[in-house]
Amino acid sequence: MSRPIPVARRLSKAWLRGACVPYTARRAFSAQVTGSRTTDITALKVNQDRLMETLHQTCSWGTGKRWGSGPNDTGMSRLALSDTDKQARDWFVETTSSLGCHVKVDAMGNIFAVRPGRREGLATFAGSHLDTQPSGGRYDGILGILAGVEMLKTLKDHQAETEFPVGVVNWTNEEGARFPISMCSSGVWAGDIPLETAYNLREVGGGTATMRSELERIGYLGSIPASHKSTPMAAHFELHIEQGPLLEAEKQKIGVVHGVQAYRWFMVDVSGRDAHTGSTPLGKRADAMLLAARLITHSHRLATKHSAVASTGILSLTPGSTNTIPGHVRFTLDVRAPADSTVEAIEADLKRDFAALAAGENIQGLLDGATPSLPLEVSWRTDSVSPATLFHPDCIAAVRASAEAVTGDKSLVRDMTSGAGHDTVYASRHCPASMIFVPSKNGVSHNPEEYTSPEDCALGAQVLMQSVLRFDSMRASS
Amino acid sequence: MSRPIPVARRLSKAWLRGACVPYTARRAFSAQVTGSRTTDITALKVNQDRLMETLHQTCSWGTGKRWGSGPNDTGMSRLALSDTDKQARDWFVETTSSLGCHVKVDAMGNIFAVRPGRREGLATFAGSHLDTQPSGGRYDGILGILAGVEMLKTLKDHQAETEFPVGVVNWTNEEGARFPISMCSSGVWAGDIPLETAYNLREVGGGTATMRSELERIGYLGSIPASHKSTPMAAHFELHIEQGPLLEAEKQKIGVVHGVQAYRWFMVDVSGRDAHTGSTPLGKRADAMLLAARLITHSHRLATKHSAVASTGILSLTPGSTNTIPGHVRFTLDVRAPADSTVEAIEADLKRDFAALAAGENIQGLLDGATPSLPLEVSWRTDSVSPATLFHPDCIAAVRASAEAVTGDKSLVRDMTSGAGHDTVYASRHCPASMIFVPSKNGVSHNPEEYTSPEDCALGAQVLMQSVLRFDSMRASS
Repeated sequence: MSRPIPVARRLSKAWLRGACVPYTARRAFSAQVTGSRTTDITALKVNQDRLMETLHQTCSWGTGKRWGSGPNDTGMSRLALSDTDKQARDWFVETTSSLGCHVKVDAMGNIFAVRPGRREGLATFAGSHLDTQPSGGRYDGILGILAGVEMLKTLKDHQAETEFPVGVVNWTNEEGARFPISMCSSGVWAGDIPLETAYNLREVGGGTATMRSELERIGYLGSIPASHKSTPMAAHFELHIEQGPLLEAEKQKIGVVHGVQAYRWFMVDVSGRDAHTGSTPLGKRADAMLLAARLITHSHRLATKHSAVASTGILSLTPGSTNTIPGHVRFTLDVRAPADSTVEAIEADLKRDFAALAAGENIQGLLDGATPSLPLEVSWRTDSVSPATLFHPDCIAAVRASAEAVTGDKSLVRDMTSGAGHDTVYASRHCPASMIFVPSKNGVSHNPEEYTSPEDCALGAQVLMQSVLRFDSMRASS
Repeated sequence: MSRPIPVARRLSKAWLRGACVPYTARRAFSAQVTGSRTTDITALKVNQDRLMETLHQTCSWGTGKRWGSGPNDTGMSRLALSDTDKQARDWFVETTSSLGCHVKVDAMGNIFAVRPGRREGLATFAGSHLDTQPSGGRYDGILGILAGVEMLKTLKDHQAETEFPVGVVNWTNEEGARFPISMCSSGVWAGDIPLETAYNLREVGGGTATMRSELERIGYLGSIPASHKSTPMAAHFELHIEQGPLLEAEKQKIGVVHGVQAYRWFMVDVSGRDAHTGSTPLGKRADAMLLAARLITHSHRLATKHSAVASTGILSLTPGSTNTIPGHVRFTLDVRAPADSTVEAIEADLKRDFAALAAGENIQGLLDGATPSLPLEVSWRTDSVSPATLFHPDCIAAVRASAEAVTGDKSLVRDMTSGAGHDTVYASRHCPASMIFVPSKNGVSHNPEEYTSPEDCALGAQVLMQSVLRFDSMRASS
């Protein structure tokens, strides 16, 4: 996720009037099965084998790097709007249509498959994305879509009627790996990314294709506007792999996601002076790499102090010669915390302490045992400010109730804040929304070896389906 | 300098028999001026204006980046064996020939200009190099050659006869900037770099030219072997800018160089695990960049402890994305100290402490206030081992006596160890040698703004000339 987005409004219950109604209390909920018979929806079960078989089948479009000897031990490389993305999209359209859905494609290629309910009204969606990183895995995004399709199949198996429509949405170019804005098309839908900006995005790596030209080429430049106004949603639920190590480490199964961390991205420039490594004594240096090393070391201490995270993912230096002390270093700093105020506080501490360290002040013993050097300069650029996103309490409650019902054990369910951005962030700006996390093996993601067990995938799909149905039922019974 | 070279032998006085004789004590020394008249050589003065005028004139071949508004406020970009290097070489050959020298070019394009003495014998040389860095200055190497030529002019002005021949040598491709081995052709002369290795060096930047093809192209592929056996020298003196800040800082004028620091170059690989910056808590990370930052911070502390220097000039990380914790970082470590034993001791400390830090041990408080992380791995590769070079005591004594005589003030003269490598390192393996340093403004070198005042250049040239003449006189009187 690379674009700043304003803090999600805590959606008022009043907002829900008309399209849906608030979930006010735990209650029995139901769907109409086989015409008029009312059945406990918790009895509806997704089919784990079918889910996993279909998931791996769709991964034949865009198969990536092999990492093991098993039949599914390959990653994915299905870049947005590529030929293999088109194959996956075609499958999605055909499958959901055959399951009784009306399918609409908007001007960003977002695909909305809607299964009618007993009444007219907005659909409650399960959504995610089919595109992957160039060296990605089989679960990030893909699991969310496949679980949505499995929900449609399960409803059809039982001839279950929902009160209002339910649907599955595939968002275009969530990864931002080929066209470099992540969550790009949910962002356009939300009105936060201008359509023209998205259309003009040129593929990375020097190619000439743009999002618009590729949408046109593969036949997914839809006729309806890409906008929450044209395609409003009653709610948006997203099943996603955690992409972190917490659920696995705590031996828990379901993450009830309350929102997405605030984050800020900075570019830090350290300016000293190039000098010969051999002929310049330590005390006569303005070594930009040494100062950068201290700053990165210190950023971690400050993150620890604030219970936040701080990370340097890119660092470059000049001139870049073994025997020249670098006169300049530039590095990124990605700072995240659940609350905006925490990110603000750590930014203030970082700026104060970085300036002090550049001036030679010994902060927290970092200069103990060091030779005082010439002063250096540190400058900052803020590249991205993304306030915390808080998901809707009704959707969070629906996910928690579903997770507890499905697992039968509250201790397997964990309240979480997502560290990464997802399409649900943009969706949550215009409808109630929440997310469901399932464990990632070793916390690994954006990597061919990304893995979530079939059991955990099915558990997540079950919670997703129940969450959608609970929300639908809640609207009906209100 | 990028090649390891064995420690210079402390040349025994016995070695000097035949070609030259040891300088045994301070004594009056003289040269024959105007035929038979014996004159105090300290009366011979280089011409500062002529020296500087000629230096800047020769800098019209390969002028580089402008950095100021003055006529000489440009750097140099005279890559070895380029067309502009050929122009400078042609000037050198013509000028030294016109000053009465016999000029020989060897198979590496090293140019030896020898002015006959009263007696047959090996020549005492002033030597350095005319090639520059691509973004270099007007003094590194160039001053040493120009001062040698000024010495020849001064001797001619006074019709001074030396006892044995004296000469000036221009070594090919000292910088290693175009053909990537520095001190390349003095290394071949010394027998430490195989001729074929040097010949096959391909120019950096993807071109197809080799040293051999370019030597041939510009007409400097000489017929005599590039070897100390074919072209022995009685002694080698080199005037060079300090390329460091000490002389300027201490308001001193002449550095008497006793040798060159020992150094070792290492490549350090830090292996952790790629992970998402947002979804991976600090305690679940194996952040290779954070560990690399701590290692670099610590390498400076160890250098301080050992009165050595340690520097990281190159650092690269993967995968290189703002929101991915780097799983791998690779960086260079350049460690130098005057004594081999110090470099060995710091290497042992570095290896012990880097391993401990990778395992999570808190060395010297570096992990104070930090969140314990997953363990990482550190591996080492030794790229270069260059033992300390000790110059010859007779040459050092000649330089010190000359410096004291020329400055008239011992406090302006400083004993130094060179941090950088120079052609004199290779020369010193086969004849007595030493160097003379003059101040570098702000310690800057390998930079267009490299600067040494005309007065300091002339002072250095005067010390160079006297050192050569003292050595010659010493041979004669022994």
